[in-house]
Amino acid sequence: MEPTRVGVIGSGAVGRALAAGFAARGHEVTIGTREPEENDELQAWAAQLENVAIGHFAAAAEAAEIVVLATRGTAVERAVQLAGPQHFTGKVVIDATNPLAPDPATGGPGLAVGHTDSGGEAVQRALPDARVVKCFNTVNNALMVDPGFDPRRPMFIAGDDAGAKRTVAGILDDFGWDALDVGDIRQSRQLESLVLLWVAVGRARGAWDHAPAFVTP
Amino acid sequence: MEPTRVGVIGSGAVGRALAAGFAARGHEVTIGTREPEENDELQAWAAQLENVAIGHFAAAAEAAEIVVLATRGTAVERAVQLAGPQHFTGKVVIDATNPLAPDPATGGPGLAVGHTDSGGEAVQRALPDARVVKCFNTVNNALMVDPGFDPRRPMFIAGDDAGAKRTVAGILDDFGWDALDVGDIRQSRQLESLVLLWVAVGRARGAWDHAPAFVTP
Repeated sequence: MEPTRVGVIGSGAVGRALAAGFAARGHEVTIGTREPEENDELQAWAAQLENVAIGHFAAAAEAAEIVVLATRGTAVERAVQLAGPQHFTGKVVIDATNPLAPDPATGGPGLAVGHTDSGGEAVQRALPDARVVKCFNTVNNALMVDPGFDPRRPMFIAGDDAGAKRTVAGILDDFGWDALDVGDIRQSRQLESLVLLWVAVGRARGAWDHAPAFVTP
Repeated sequence: MEPTRVGVIGSGAVGRALAAGFAARGHEVTIGTREPEENDELQAWAAQLENVAIGHFAAAAEAAEIVVLATRGTAVERAVQLAGPQHFTGKVVIDATNPLAPDPATGGPGLAVGHTDSGGEAVQRALPDARVVKCFNTVNNALMVDPGFDPRRPMFIAGDDAGAKRTVAGILDDFGWDALDVGDIRQSRQLESLVLLWVAVGRARGAWDHAPAFVTP
């Protein structure tokens, strides 16, 4: 892409990683923070890089052609108010945030916005004496048994009962999958949501033999 | 796993795929349906397989050690009521269903349960004149720029403006990713939910350099 002016709202690890990436490719970056004058550590970080200036949220947004949102997810709406919504008109805004908040039920990470239930939880509620394990819902039925992955790929499982998950892991092993336990039945929210992503990717591919996985460089 | 009795609730493509998989491994399978006597096509399918019987939902659940739920997702609660919740007590229940329902806003697939909003949508609402693209939220900041995948891996993007997504795709190409457009800004629901899965997998791995992808056999 041709060099342009990029504003990054948020100066944590994500904002810095993206600011450095844009700057290294010749873009003129302003990284926005609430109190730029008082942030010596950020100043020292920026001083090591070419093409990176520091400014208030509003300055970062106003000067930019492309704005990157990289605050904590629960702070982003406040940050864009401080930056001035009028400074975003017509611009490409890259939202890199996640609205993470502690899940009050588990203490683990949850989403502050919009994810409140799942089919897996509903099934467990309907069958309170059963040991429900969410499984097999993220691939095409043609791949459920003997999918032919070499090496094997993960099949995500979620449920509240450890013994039941061990049983299902054994079944998955027989069926040609590596079970990957992602937590309690509430994680069905993620596994069911993942299916809509799977559909979108299937539409993009025009084929349906894909399975979700995580990969490393 | 040692051969056991498996009940499959639902006789569509998913139920049949899993029933056949269990039967081929020596398990004694009953595939449950509402009206087994009147389903000639299902009878003909089962007649080709060893170890597969057909029965009412209740019979399939009652006789089983392990029960598989493989109805349409929006029908599963009704199906377990028909099967009799008392027949599931203490059993491992594999929930392979997805509560899919048309998204009234798009006509495309959505979730009938629990997924009603996202941070990405909130940002777009807060900045109605901006062209918001959800991006970079599903990987560690250390991987955002020059992740070092060979071949390249997808970075999911979602947004309402096609031109903005083209711009972001160009940035991703510069940064070492293949952009994969998964739809409008509402797909942020999936990309934000995916982060919780990413966290669960990171905890299981004890490492954080993983990125979501889809793989094929």
